[in-house]
Amino acid sequence: MTSPVGLHRVLDPVGVLPQAAWRLDPYAPLGDDEVRIRVERLNLDAASFRQLSEKHGGDGAAVRAEVLEIIGDRGKMHNPVTGSGGMLIGVVDEVGPATPLPVKPGDRVATLVSLTLTPLVVEDGLAGWDGRGEQVPCTGHAILFARSVVAVLPEELDPRLSLAVLDVCGAPALTSRVVRGYRSPSVAVLGGAGKSGSLALAAARRAGAGRTVGVVPVPAERDRLAAAGLATEVVLADARDPVALAAAVTGALGGPADVTVVCVDVPGCEHGAILATADGGTVIFFSMATSFAAAALGAEGLAADVTMLVGNGYVPGHAELALDLVRQDTGVRALFEARVAAD
Amino acid sequence: MTSPVGLHRVLDPVGVLPQAAWRLDPYAPLGDDEVRIRVERLNLDAASFRQLSEKHGGDGAAVRAEVLEIIGDRGKMHNPVTGSGGMLIGVVDEVGPATPLPVKPGDRVATLVSLTLTPLVVEDGLAGWDGRGEQVPCTGHAILFARSVVAVLPEELDPRLSLAVLDVCGAPALTSRVVRGYRSPSVAVLGGAGKSGSLALAAARRAGAGRTVGVVPVPAERDRLAAAGLATEVVLADARDPVALAAAVTGALGGPADVTVVCVDVPGCEHGAILATADGGTVIFFSMATSFAAAALGAEGLAADVTMLVGNGYVPGHAELALDLVRQDTGVRALFEARVAAD
Repeated sequence: MTSPVGLHRVLDPVGVLPQAAWRLDPYAPLGDDEVRIRVERLNLDAASFRQLSEKHGGDGAAVRAEVLEIIGDRGKMHNPVTGSGGMLIGVVDEVGPATPLPVKPGDRVATLVSLTLTPLVVEDGLAGWDGRGEQVPCTGHAILFARSVVAVLPEELDPRLSLAVLDVCGAPALTSRVVRGYRSPSVAVLGGAGKSGSLALAAARRAGAGRTVGVVPVPAERDRLAAAGLATEVVLADARDPVALAAAVTGALGGPADVTVVCVDVPGCEHGAILATADGGTVIFFSMATSFAAAALGAEGLAADVTMLVGNGYVPGHAELALDLVRQDTGVRALFEARVAAD
Repeated sequence: MTSPVGLHRVLDPVGVLPQAAWRLDPYAPLGDDEVRIRVERLNLDAASFRQLSEKHGGDGAAVRAEVLEIIGDRGKMHNPVTGSGGMLIGVVDEVGPATPLPVKPGDRVATLVSLTLTPLVVEDGLAGWDGRGEQVPCTGHAILFARSVVAVLPEELDPRLSLAVLDVCGAPALTSRVVRGYRSPSVAVLGGAGKSGSLALAAARRAGAGRTVGVVPVPAERDRLAAAGLATEVVLADARDPVALAAAVTGALGGPADVTVVCVDVPGCEHGAILATADGGTVIFFSMATSFAAAALGAEGLAADVTMLVGNGYVPGHAELALDLVRQDTGVRALFEARVAAD
């Protein structure tokens, strides 16, 4: 019997879980509780794509070559610098007889576990990708374990739209849970015009938030987010500048935030988020660029009595909640459609 | 007026908070709201000391030279590899007229904010330290800001004992708060025989935990922790081996833990902690060796509905709680006295 968490596909170092492994085996025969997917598209994690793109100065061919090298070396798309991956969509190809996953051959699905633990083979050299966007057309195969999470894509939505939504569906689900733990809390979302940020704002409103503020770094994003109508206020600030950020949030909300959600995929936002949050409040870190030590020591150094959550990408019902928000909230939907069209 | 969070002492890069800075200025004249301490002893963060000691193969003179170089270069003891610092004790030397801190000249105090944000000058070349332990006798001065946290040391306790306790006093305070959020939860503490681990176990018991398990890596620690009587069960396991760790915890508690506290100062314990925790449970990461990405992606990859907390070193009342536990809990006291004597 194969391992429900995929231990049998770990090649190096042996004994760790697939996400911690340097290298996975994507070629072993399909286990009884595994599922094989024909891959159609990868969606790279925003922090990973940004790191690769900046490293290569925006040279798409070089980015593509490095992504191919990573997948070839590691048997998975696991950026060794950022530690992050992304997700994929494809069509179910073969289903082991003992799988607990609710899929059948022919289903178009998205994987909701990270690419950092998903065995993956690319067969087309990523020939259809110019290396300049997070969404990567791809022919190949991937393996799901018994304890993976997978969503069948809704037929009425563009698959690229669904993929973009599902990639960040943990953010609105956890934001919703945290907001419900307060009474009409004020909520600040750093990176409010982005994918996870806009969904977090929509989820906060639905969960009963009071005043909300979306913080964005450039006027174009401010205008887009204001037009979407997702936040009470939209303000411009550099989330890496703690003093400026705290002033912007406090000004917009009339005081520090009860709940601060960090959706900015650049390093150095921990201190600003803490400084912008009220005593007794909660900071949720969704950015993969978050530094654990900076958060822990920052709160201590500021004598800040805030609860700090590692943004868990899995919350039960997360895919359904996020897809529902995009179906029903025209502001979120417009932001996502514009982003997918531009990608 | 000087900044309550110390912005005026940041030399490079300008505009960030002191903890994020590469270099601080410990020489500027004392501000109206600042306090200067004559330093007597540094207590290096365990992860920092371990990294330095391993890098130099246990060569104490080389470790001492590198600590001196870090403090000289940065104006603070901020290990650039681990990102962590530690704390210090000393005697209050001068108090600015506008300080809100409850201290007066002559008070023997411990700083409860990290050394990573505390301006520091060493004047004796650390001549009294052999480079082989975390506690560093030291002559020099340090600066506290208005928003620092400082505790006057109890006269009836050995200052080295108080320092060792206060260094980790965030752990019992946050553990206590989380345990009170459940009804008689089962609690697992990884690294239960260490400083933060033993205090977390004692705090969990006082806060109403049900069954508890202390996980330790070697038989000597198992025997010490069992003798201290702090946990229902004490088990041997390598916290970096997720499958073995989960089996050990589940075996000891009769199921996964409701609350798992990570106090092991080595990298790679995130997945085991998540796998050992029940759905709906909470993992508190106190180790500075924690990887944010490994925790976030690990929980997602395991489809684990667990709340993951960044261990905030500041919780109101933390110093009082920790000192009280050491005064009243003979098991904790014995562990700390043995550790201080061996140091």
